[in-house]
Amino acid sequence: MGYYFKSDNTAAACDEILAAIASANHGYASGYGDDAWTERLDREFSRVFGSEVRVFPVATGTAANALALATLTPPWGAILAHREAHIVRDECGAPEHMSGGARLLLLDGPDALVTPAELRRALDDNPATVHTVQPRTLSITQATELGTVYRPGPLRDLTAAAHAAGLRVHVDGARFANAVAFLGCKPGELGAAAGVDVLSFGATKNGALAAEAVVFFDPALAADFELRRKRAGHLLSKMRYVSAQLLAYLQEDLWLRNARRANLLAARVAAAAGALRLHPVEANEIFIRTTPERIAALRARGFQFYDAGAAGSGQARFVVSWNQPEADVDALCAALRALDGR
Amino acid sequence: MGYYFKSDNTAAACDEILAAIASANHGYASGYGDDAWTERLDREFSRVFGSEVRVFPVATGTAANALALATLTPPWGAILAHREAHIVRDECGAPEHMSGGARLLLLDGPDALVTPAELRRALDDNPATVHTVQPRTLSITQATELGTVYRPGPLRDLTAAAHAAGLRVHVDGARFANAVAFLGCKPGELGAAAGVDVLSFGATKNGALAAEAVVFFDPALAADFELRRKRAGHLLSKMRYVSAQLLAYLQEDLWLRNARRANLLAARVAAAAGALRLHPVEANEIFIRTTPERIAALRARGFQFYDAGAAGSGQARFVVSWNQPEADVDALCAALRALDGR
Amino acid sequence: MGYYFKSDNTAAACDEILAAIASANHGYASGYGDDAWTERLDREFSRVFGSEVRVFPVATGTAANALALATLTPPWGAILAHREAHIVRDECGAPEHMSGGARLLLLDGPDALVTPAELRRALDDNPATVHTVQPRTLSITQATELGTVYRPGPLRDLTAAAHAAGLRVHVDGARFANAVAFLGCKPGELGAAAGVDVLSFGATKNGALAAEAVVFFDPALAADFELRRKRAGHLLSKMRYVSAQLLAYLQEDLWLRNARRANLLAARVAAAAGALRLHPVEANEIFIRTTPERIAALRARGFQFYDAGAAGSGQARFVVSWNQPEADVDALCAALRALDGR
Amino acid sequence: MGYYFKSDNTAAACDEILAAIASANHGYASGYGDDAWTERLDREFSRVFGSEVRVFPVATGTAANALALATLTPPWGAILAHREAHIVRDECGAPEHMSGGARLLLLDGPDALVTPAELRRALDDNPATVHTVQPRTLSITQATELGTVYRPGPLRDLTAAAHAAGLRVHVDGARFANAVAFLGCKPGELGAAAGVDVLSFGATKNGALAAEAVVFFDPALAADFELRRKRAGHLLSKMRYVSAQLLAYLQEDLWLRNARRANLLAARVAAAAGALRLHPVEANEIFIRTTPERIAALRARGFQFYDAGAAGSGQARFVVSWNQPEADVDALCAALRALDGR
Repeated sequence: MGYYFKSDNTAAACDEILAAIASANHGYASGYGDDAWTERLDREFSRVFGSEVRVFPVATGTAANALALATLTPPWGAILAHREAHIVRDECGAPEHMSGGARLLLLDGPDALVTPAELRRALDDNPATVHTVQPRTLSITQATELGTVYRPGPLRDLTAAAHAAGLRVHVDGARFANAVAFLGCKPGELGAAAGVDVLSFGATKNGALAAEAVVFFDPALAADFELRRKRAGHLLSKMRYVSAQLLAYLQEDLWLRNARRANLLAARVAAAAGALRLHPVEANEIFIRTTPERIAALRARGFQFYDAGAAGSGQARFVVSWNQPEADVDALCAALRALDGR
Repeated sequence: MGYYFKSDNTAAACDEILAAIASANHGYASGYGDDAWTERLDREFSRVFGSEVRVFPVATGTAANALALATLTPPWGAILAHREAHIVRDECGAPEHMSGGARLLLLDGPDALVTPAELRRALDDNPATVHTVQPRTLSITQATELGTVYRPGPLRDLTAAAHAAGLRVHVDGARFANAVAFLGCKPGELGAAAGVDVLSFGATKNGALAAEAVVFFDPALAADFELRRKRAGHLLSKMRYVSAQLLAYLQEDLWLRNARRANLLAARVAAAAGALRLHPVEANEIFIRTTPERIAALRARGFQFYDAGAAGSGQARFVVSWNQPEADVDALCAALRALDGR
Repeated sequence: MGYYFKSDNTAAACDEILAAIASANHGYASGYGDDAWTERLDREFSRVFGSEVRVFPVATGTAANALALATLTPPWGAILAHREAHIVRDECGAPEHMSGGARLLLLDGPDALVTPAELRRALDDNPATVHTVQPRTLSITQATELGTVYRPGPLRDLTAAAHAAGLRVHVDGARFANAVAFLGCKPGELGAAAGVDVLSFGATKNGALAAEAVVFFDPALAADFELRRKRAGHLLSKMRYVSAQLLAYLQEDLWLRNARRANLLAARVAAAAGALRLHPVEANEIFIRTTPERIAALRARGFQFYDAGAAGSGQARFVVSWNQPEADVDALCAALRALDGR
Repeated sequence: MGYYFKSDNTAAACDEILAAIASANHGYASGYGDDAWTERLDREFSRVFGSEVRVFPVATGTAANALALATLTPPWGAILAHREAHIVRDECGAPEHMSGGARLLLLDGPDALVTPAELRRALDDNPATVHTVQPRTLSITQATELGTVYRPGPLRDLTAAAHAAGLRVHVDGARFANAVAFLGCKPGELGAAAGVDVLSFGATKNGALAAEAVVFFDPALAADFELRRKRAGHLLSKMRYVSAQLLAYLQEDLWLRNARRANLLAARVAAAAGALRLHPVEANEIFIRTTPERIAALRARGFQFYDAGAAGSGQARFVVSWNQPEADVDALCAALRALDGR
């Protein structure tokens, strides 16, 4: 009944993930992460990222982000983030909740990308005194909420600017796989080597049921994380089922294969969108601007997607899932080409 | 490789639960609970409980408890709970975290059961003025942490005493199935009819992967719950997989069948424990007291379990899981009989 | 040694205030507000505002603001405020702290004034869903941080827009006296009659030692305030000394006499500033823009004041205190006239 | 009009304190502690305590306690305190509020005194795992809520036990002057030399209007205190008036002279109470046990005091203020002697 481009979280999970859960489902395993699956996570993630990391699984991206940010930011701290960021717009104040009231300072920048200059401008506009919240953390999204990607070079420049100002750097990687797939780089080039301190490494949107990993590139920062996680109700008792998902996700590059497919199909949509396209399409999201009437016409034809921008602006967002049928994509391409008047 | 009696959360999930997940794993479904599985929950739980309820799935029992308690208790409120309660001893301050700093006032009582008299004593000892935290919520556990069960009659008396004092009543039902199975009553007799306001209805320990339901018997109390859940990172994007577990759990009384089996095996262990037994065995937990040496000897023979009570007290806890092999139970019974000198 | 225009909080307290403290300093008085002075506050403030109010004294403006905002705003709520607001820029996250993590949504507007249109724009840009913080409170400042004043008519329009959107209205009145003095209106015209729900009524800047009053125009909103205040450490034990200040402040219009004098002197400075003046001068603050060199020259001549705007912008703020010597003002006027090239 | 023995916070302030405020009330002074009075505090307190300290003034004892405890205790931490402690019974959850939800673990002990053995018992009963709050802070009261005093030797033993367990030590010194006066020791013997990390040094109850000082014996612990204080609304703008009180309080041993007088009069009451006396009287509080009828009779004769213990237990508390008229004390002594049947 229609073509689903609302979000990659509307897609099912992949067979490999379900098989891994089924395969973990025998015998006893100690609870709360003291199991054979969870114990392998640090090693596997360290291998994938090419540096020593500490990894903590949780079940949602909001939990991963908020717990990571709370670990980096005291209650009187400020988290600098792009005003399009998921943590700003879509998490109902989870960073404030988890941190005990830290503040989000909003950054601007084209295509949802933060630049060192914009970061410095914001810091200059918010000089720290005893009367103000204290900038402590930069949080960026990779790939961004507008479907763009930080390259390793600019990312290093940005994290260097952040570190120079005494900030730690968090990356919301709900679509981290799509960024790595797009760049064709090693994962580590977007991790420790790029100056990232903590990464919310997402799997749910890209083929898992419910599995996210908080990856500390500086293990020393993780000291209190386990207590925060437990206290927030995010330490799962039967953790093996989350960890098994993450292990399967990393195995034989499942994560990258899924992401590559979604990216490739998204690129097709981008090409079809032509002049309607709003942002570079570097991951699995496509934004267009047309007229509200044409948006309505697309919906009438069975395409499901979210509006973007302000109400009535004629902007729309399409997200291609890891398992999106090619036929859906072909239909969307044809419809967009027709809109574009070609 | 040993006999596992550490906790029912070390057991695997049942086939019906995995089958339900697999069966939900096709096609698209809107995220965050706007799916066909989640939409059925209110109806199914209302049917099971025989009264209109509002139900919210989450992935952990700590989340269920802390979110429920925060909904009932303002930051300056106090939650009265038995000093053996899981929320007191095993949740790393989750009630405080989620409520913004409410306080736990500790109650006593044999076998981890709270009586109206003890509740009134505690309220008398903590008269509310502007200088004190304000008692607002009674939280009890059903079945309790010591394996005992509140009967409908005494439960009604207790909740009546709580309501008379202006308190709301929360039940931590991590092992609610075991209580219903033991009593052979209708679930509703331990719910709205017994004066319970909110129930953390557990499934994880009794056969699910990760699925708990917060059940509001007074739907009016649920007003802000959804915002609290989202803000705390406990709104799963692919919610269908949690809701599918809960639906399967209720279907054809799977939850009661699993619990009955565990209770039955636990009763065998209780009988074998004889005079070593510490508390009535009314669910799937058995506590014994013997000598530290005998405790060590049991461990040496491959039995895995937790110490109970103070270190060196010679107390131990055994939990029987829904799928515990009968052979394990037979082995434990034999070992306990030998300990008891029979 | 110089001329102090840094802030009205650098001024001493007036003789009437000190006399009131001395006069309260005999005999015993029950603590925590159960004293003869505090008991008169509701009646005195109700008289001054011409409507039934509930009044709670505290010792700082930040406490008054944050406690009032927390009373109106749940943790998942949003407080809309001008980006120049004191609660945004100068209270180190006190609103977040006191509310349990509510968010500030920033508004724009010339001269630090919020308009109904700007309020509606912000609400349109932040539609409330379960994924977002929920707009609950509008906080404005009277007189504003840029020395301007809301007239009764526009204020009514603004609060009507807020109430229509389901928001409560808080006024930071650290310089409320200056606003009333400027407008020559009845205090109530800026209170209940203007749709204000809660007012932080300041006295400290305008002649008291340390005394602020949280004034609830809708007493029903005050239900939990006393517990919040106590819990935050803002219930003074020897409350009589704060309440005595407030009573003296209201007596024989001391508050308005002090404010009128400061406003009058500020108007002289405004006239002297001529084209350098940046905003309408409607209270006791004057902002100018000139060159950084001239700013430095003013400082070299002994004038003490804060920079305004961005560093190096050549903007400066002068605040005239209730007891500012006329000679200081004359000196500043002369210096500004010289700057302005007249 | 009666004899006031309800609390030392019902007494007026001393002339020296008021004179100091009046003397500070001229000219301009920078706000928020950047003034000549506040700048002298570190030096004066370091002199009094014989070691380098960092001092932060606030206006209430609850603020001093809660801010100090929050500085020492993370949200997932536990604060161990006697169940009679003011922070437990009379601050409406301020420690939880300020710390972001830390928990109070309650200790027992005769006369409200904590012993190393009791501390160790509580730590043994609350072993720290990832599932539990983490003991971080011991908070004791000096003089205690039951009018007793920790001697330097036992205090050193207790703080050594705390430090050995990884805890920091906070002292609620609302009546610290009475303890020093009773012991006749140097203040430092109850400070750094006794292993105390942070002291809430009270002045309000003993002659000030509203002045308390948070004294860090280990200045390294004070790093974030200023931000916490500001954020909580406890940084007074016209700070000179609080600091001037503290300076006057220390000058020429005013604090000790006031306390000595109160202690001396309390000792007279203690002698008169005879066998009715419940605890050693080592400061300015006397507790008695008699019959409810006799309690009522005392009240009927004009004595004002609080009940102690459970309702109807016939226990009462009398507090002697720094300026209690001798005639009041004589009347109370006579009345108690009559009760005691002598």
